[in-house]
Amino acid sequence: MVGPGTLALHEPRFQGKEASFLMDCLASTYVSSVGAYVDRFESDLATLTGAKHAVAVVNGTAALHIALLLAGVQADDEVLLPTFTFVATANAIRYCQAIAHFVDSEANTLGLDAHALREHLAANTHMKHGVCINRHTGRVIRAVLPMHTFGCPVDLSALLTVATEFNLQVIEDAAESLGSYYKGQHTGTSGIFGTLSFNGNKIVTTGGGGALLTNDTELARKAKHLTTTAKVAHRWEFVHDQLGYNYRMPNINAALGCAQLEQLPVFLAQKRALHDRYKQAFASVDGIRLWSEPAHCTSNYWLQSLLLDEPDLALRDAILAAANDAGLMTRPAWTLMHELPMYAHMPRAQLPVAQSIAARLINIPSSAGLGVSG
Amino acid sequence: MVGPGTLALHEPRFQGKEASFLMDCLASTYVSSVGAYVDRFESDLATLTGAKHAVAVVNGTAALHIALLLAGVQADDEVLLPTFTFVATANAIRYCQAIAHFVDSEANTLGLDAHALREHLAANTHMKHGVCINRHTGRVIRAVLPMHTFGCPVDLSALLTVATEFNLQVIEDAAESLGSYYKGQHTGTSGIFGTLSFNGNKIVTTGGGGALLTNDTELARKAKHLTTTAKVAHRWEFVHDQLGYNYRMPNINAALGCAQLEQLPVFLAQKRALHDRYKQAFASVDGIRLWSEPAHCTSNYWLQSLLLDEPDLALRDAILAAANDAGLMTRPAWTLMHELPMYAHMPRAQLPVAQSIAARLINIPSSAGLGVSG
Repeated sequence: MVGPGTLALHEPRFQGKEASFLMDCLASTYVSSVGAYVDRFESDLATLTGAKHAVAVVNGTAALHIALLLAGVQADDEVLLPTFTFVATANAIRYCQAIAHFVDSEANTLGLDAHALREHLAANTHMKHGVCINRHTGRVIRAVLPMHTFGCPVDLSALLTVATEFNLQVIEDAAESLGSYYKGQHTGTSGIFGTLSFNGNKIVTTGGGGALLTNDTELARKAKHLTTTAKVAHRWEFVHDQLGYNYRMPNINAALGCAQLEQLPVFLAQKRALHDRYKQAFASVDGIRLWSEPAHCTSNYWLQSLLLDEPDLALRDAILAAANDAGLMTRPAWTLMHELPMYAHMPRAQLPVAQSIAARLINIPSSAGLGVSG
Repeated sequence: MVGPGTLALHEPRFQGKEASFLMDCLASTYVSSVGAYVDRFESDLATLTGAKHAVAVVNGTAALHIALLLAGVQADDEVLLPTFTFVATANAIRYCQAIAHFVDSEANTLGLDAHALREHLAANTHMKHGVCINRHTGRVIRAVLPMHTFGCPVDLSALLTVATEFNLQVIEDAAESLGSYYKGQHTGTSGIFGTLSFNGNKIVTTGGGGALLTNDTELARKAKHLTTTAKVAHRWEFVHDQLGYNYRMPNINAALGCAQLEQLPVFLAQKRALHDRYKQAFASVDGIRLWSEPAHCTSNYWLQSLLLDEPDLALRDAILAAANDAGLMTRPAWTLMHELPMYAHMPRAQLPVAQSIAARLINIPSSAGLGVSG
């Protein structure tokens, strides 16, 4: 979101029951850590995604943190993730005192390249008592954390095969991919956990919020417990049985989310319509193309992306400057994680594709409202 | 907050501009991580407390975590805190991989006993290069984290003297004490940082939220940076220069908070009126007394407390059962931190007063609305 007079990258739309649900929540006085909207939001998310359970939390970063802890990630373990991601994915690994181990992406999904991952693991790890060990560091590689970039699912079939071969837990960072499907299955429901974000820039928002998805009832119970200060239920006693977190989603934010979720089908249709309009518009422009979903992937088209045919940082930055000067908010991909100072010394694979994408990609205004006809 | 038909320990009251501010926030579309209400809420908090800066965050636990990090608390340092506190105080220390070191409280403030602390430190630590070292563990004792219990300020003059003598950073956990003053100065403004909470059970609520208070402009800047993923400002680039956190308060929660803060003077008067009514009611009851603020302390009377004359867990639990059965929500103090499984092995002083208070104290319904005359 940016200031008036500027076309933002993504603006939320509140054209449903947002006001009514907020007022109802206020009238109930249950604006905080318990309330009917939290329960409903979790139930609606489970229904929508097909996950057996959803646990609402305070933001997507908190969801990742808890998912990693419950996947068994321990201090000094390594966790594989794309270098081409938002910083929260890597930060959550550090909150567990684990090590981020960066791998490459593929251009068609913009997400983790399972084939390159397999080659990297085959060349640099060995299995010991069924656990994958990094040959160079001696550390356990415990999990892999793909991120569904700008809404496009990664190649989950290939990734799950690699994860099984190397005994890695799979946590899907589905922060950007609510409403995105891989072979008909909602993103975030194939691994031990999926995580969602409802920040203001996401396809639906709760102001700030996130959720864990899981098909495992015991893990869902543990996620709820850990995110609510690990308090043991009792009429009056305050007993907490482990180190817990204050990661609850407040009921007032869930109220907003319930209203937003009702509009998701509309937002998805509008995002797709915008994609089609952009595609036509850029069809005849040489040297640049609009990114489109590959086979088996149904993207929510959360953010629309242009890709220069060739890596050209000077051209990329000239376009960014011109567009932003003209009040069209555009942005490049994130600085690659392994180029940030706190991650520069962490282990990594060869990253040629991620580097190429980063030098070629520009996100353009993608608000659902732009997809409304007329 | 509890269900209908029950008199809760604390219920929020929304009788000001809450609805209007929420609707305005929604209409602006700025419901998330930036927005005018966050700026206003921070400014209002600074004005109210007299702190030079306030930084709004997602909850009080997050505020404590960041305050400890910026106070220089490192892994394996020890941090002193009362065993008589809510679990978040101790948890935040663990998030820094530091060690909780529990000390005793005093009955008149219900908070950390500075005189007992001094004796404990004199007997069990030595200074080395100006740093306080625990003789038994060899670890640095870096900071002290008093908590202003149920709204009553600790004896800050005495505590600051001890902190200076042993070169300890002081972070005030003022989660429960918005509107409370020690010798005319607002709680949370005497140490390097103070932290506030705006959970639904607090004197004012943002649904979920918290804030850091500080008089140090550079520390305030660092707190804002760390709580907003450590992103470096740029028109389009995504550079983060250190491990950061997603601890922003959403604008929609700040909107609620701005409306609530306007009513704080009313809530304070109502809480005090309720205290006076309870005091009269219990004046003639043998064996039990209502806790009242000591000299130099102006409590916000967030939660009203009864104290049995003698520790008597059986009597305490009989009262709790009878009251809760009758629909009057009452609760004991928290289980003491050093009695929780994850903190049982951590260093501690002698804790006789905390143990006595825990066996004598009962919180009773304390909503501001109960203090309204009529």
